[in-house]
Amino acid sequence: MPEFGLAPCYRIIKKAGAERVGDDAAEELRNVLEEVAQAISKQAVEFALHAKRKTIKAEDVRLAAKNFLGK
Amino acid sequence: MPEFGLAPCYRIIKKAGAERVGDDAAEELRNVLEEVAQAISKQAVEFALHAKRKTIKAEDVRLAAKNFLGK
Repeated sequence: MPEFGLAPCYRIIKKAGAERVGDDAAEELRNVLEEVAQAISKQAVEFALHAKRKTIKAEDVRLAAKNFLGK
Repeated sequence: MPEFGLAPCYRIIKKAGAERVGDDAAEELRNVLEEVAQAISKQAVEFALHAKRKTIKAEDVRLAAKNFLGK
């Protein structure tokens, strides 16, 4: 089940300069973001464990995002 | 202003296997996702214009995501 709503996805595409946004486009963006979020989160959990912590911190997410997005 | 809520980000990290999730971690995930969403959406708008459409469709988002995520 998706965590994110369609309305935020719709608004982000709209703000990017879209004249009209298809419902399928907002759904597709939501799917992509959910996948990205899951992949980053899994890595963040690994990085926290690696640092011998049970609490996931911003630095874990930052490192995972950098790793995942190749930036 | 962020479009996504913190609660969904918190839940996604939790589902990824986190024992505890710091507030800063959920915020960081939200920031990363907003950036990713904006970057993908900007490309999707360009791809729709390139295809001489004013409506952004799922295929534009899909191509943009593929392009952005390098998949």
